[in-house]
Amino acid sequence: MVVDDDQEIQGIIEEALSDGGFEIAIAASGEEAVPLLRGNRTHYRADVTDINLRGTMDGWEVGRSAREIDPAFPIVYMTGAAAHEWPSQGVPKSILLTKPFAPAQLLTAVSQLLNNPPPTG
Amino acid sequence: MVVDDDQEIQGIIEEALSDGGFEIAIAASGEEAVPLLRGNRTHYRADVTDINLRGTMDGWEVGRSAREIDPAFPIVYMTGAAAHEWPSQGVPKSILLTKPFAPAQLLTAVSQLLNNPPPTG
Amino acid sequence: MVVDDDQEIQGIIEEALSDGGFEIAIAASGEEAVPLLRGNRTHYRADVTDINLRGTMDGWEVGRSAREIDPAFPIVYMTGAAAHEWPSQGVPKSILLTKPFAPAQLLTAVSQLLNNPPPTG
Amino acid sequence: MVVDDDQEIQGIIEEALSDGGFEIAIAASGEEAVPLLRGNRTHYRADVTDINLRGTMDGWEVGRSAREIDPAFPIVYMTGAAAHEWPSQGVPKSILLTKPFAPAQLLTAVSQLLNNPPPTG
Amino acid sequence: MVVDDDQEIQGIIEEALSDGGFEIAIAASGEEAVPLLRGNRTHYRADVTDINLRGTMDGWEVGRSAREIDPAFPIVYMTGAAAHEWPSQGVPKSILLTKPFAPAQLLTAVSQLLNNPPPTG
Amino acid sequence: MVVDDDQEIQGIIEEALSDGGFEIAIAASGEEAVPLLRGNRTHYRADVTDINLRGTMDGWEVGRSAREIDPAFPIVYMTGAAAHEWPSQGVPKSILLTKPFAPAQLLTAVSQLLNNPPPTG
Repeated sequence: MVVDDDQEIQGIIEEALSDGGFEIAIAASGEEAVPLLRGNRTHYRADVTDINLRGTMDGWEVGRSAREIDPAFPIVYMTGAAAHEWPSQGVPKSILLTKPFAPAQLLTAVSQLLNNPPPTG
Repeated sequence: MVVDDDQEIQGIIEEALSDGGFEIAIAASGEEAVPLLRGNRTHYRADVTDINLRGTMDGWEVGRSAREIDPAFPIVYMTGAAAHEWPSQGVPKSILLTKPFAPAQLLTAVSQLLNNPPPTG
Repeated sequence: MVVDDDQEIQGIIEEALSDGGFEIAIAASGEEAVPLLRGNRTHYRADVTDINLRGTMDGWEVGRSAREIDPAFPIVYMTGAAAHEWPSQGVPKSILLTKPFAPAQLLTAVSQLLNNPPPTG
Repeated sequence: MVVDDDQEIQGIIEEALSDGGFEIAIAASGEEAVPLLRGNRTHYRADVTDINLRGTMDGWEVGRSAREIDPAFPIVYMTGAAAHEWPSQGVPKSILLTKPFAPAQLLTAVSQLLNNPPPTG
Repeated sequence: MVVDDDQEIQGIIEEALSDGGFEIAIAASGEEAVPLLRGNRTHYRADVTDINLRGTMDGWEVGRSAREIDPAFPIVYMTGAAAHEWPSQGVPKSILLTKPFAPAQLLTAVSQLLNNPPPTG
Repeated sequence: MVVDDDQEIQGIIEEALSDGGFEIAIAASGEEAVPLLRGNRTHYRADVTDINLRGTMDGWEVGRSAREIDPAFPIVYMTGAAAHEWPSQGVPKSILLTKPFAPAQLLTAVSQLLNNPPPTG
């Protein structure tokens, strides 16, 4: 699930992930994304979220909410200005992509997190 | 070397690895794969194996046999139903891909293992 | 700096860290600890914090505050009941010790984090 | 739980782990150890096993059996002659100690595995 | 920045990195590359260097010079004959690609290093 | 093998490593240490070296020389003033201890490197 409210960036991310063979669902805000994750926790495989979002939740809160629903959920943050907040606001074992990033970085980030499953498989 | 007996999945894997620039050899069973590895241990670079295989060897045995031939051989397992067996049946420093997975996950898995060589180079 | 309000556990932690050669400062709450870190950020080397603390800050907030002061600050959490909150409330590259833990685990946790410095040394 | 049939080595291991603050249970064979783990899976925290054991199970089989009972169970192997078998016979995320080893290596090995919990805490 | 003096290999690397969405600058020698890095240290994101280069600097020296300019700079070495020198001549947290390698390995190597930023973001 | 020319620090290191169960050999310079490593490469298990040494070799050169003799040799550097040189002068998979450090950090550093053997055991 990609959480981003900028349609241009949504398009770039969507194309990159599709090229890598992933199916994508897009939410424009945390308020939209979190209920979808909660309602169908086995349907989504990872969360790729911008930090500055419309609505009252920012991307750091989306990451924490997703981990409350599934403690092993892969989280990738994308940010330009807020990168310095990751050491205090990010969740453990998440990846931060600093904008601008190449599509290959996004594919590798999502794949690294999915390929490193918890011991219980 | 890809060890899989399902021709449809073979095709998907073959396309993904070719797109990433890898050359691929396919074996339909462990009985076919292991002698090839043993006969030419420097020719193959990594082993991508399904768990349920025709013949008497399963993918866990293919992984162990490959590591007996070359203790540093990269091993990637692909499975749906047998993911819970990886903590007890997988070899150290292997990667498990849970089906269904995206082609980007396979490319990243093989690349991560090849890019992390033993200290002796 | 150890943040804990249970004098018995303070004693055990203090003895373990002293045996390993560390000097220890103890704070009984987050409200006491955070100003000390802010006032002298090069004096303290790592933060070992309980989760349930007297005052209004819990250990998760202490961790986030410490990382706002120094983004590379090593954080070790100690908890019994709150371990399931670490995936959503912990900071990146922190270590969680589940109570009861052995003194060797604490020494190893602090040492692992101190021995893995950022690239800028 | 320590699985070893050599009383002298048992003594050294017992002293090292006790000095680090761990409580120790000793089994002389895999046939003795595995039912204890199965009967009380939350009581034991880690398995430290020799490879050559009396009885029909070797340490590699003890490791696999322990992981079938608890897929996240920390496994440390101790061996002199069988170190070359670890890449094919060890379980993922296990640690191999090559004899002779220092007590500090054993304490660090057990602590590293305990301090690296699965995402679900 | 790619440092390589073989135009054919330059072409392959350039195509692989472009396909992954990276912009590429090419230097034919260390003498050409290092002043560019020094003059504009925030412009370049990573260094991909061959070992045998025209001029007096080899790739190991390029890696060390780049890290003197920016201690967190991602370094990827490409080599056939000199792989055995990496344990003594490479810099910490660098990746070695042994020729021949697949384009996916190069994309994954660069992405892994860029996706693992220092704690200060 | 410990390489240090300050007798006081030698004493502290010697006591810490002995307490952890390691046997120690001390050399006062790189010129003294490297021939000992070369003459008996299976006798020594790890190198703990200061950076500023008497003689013409510094600790960075000792690390590189040790890795030329054995590409998997564990290297721990100890330094105060030269920590910023590690990203360009250290060898891959080495650990840097910034002075002052606690004895537990030294024991953990040496143990971590010894417990993480190459795939060939």
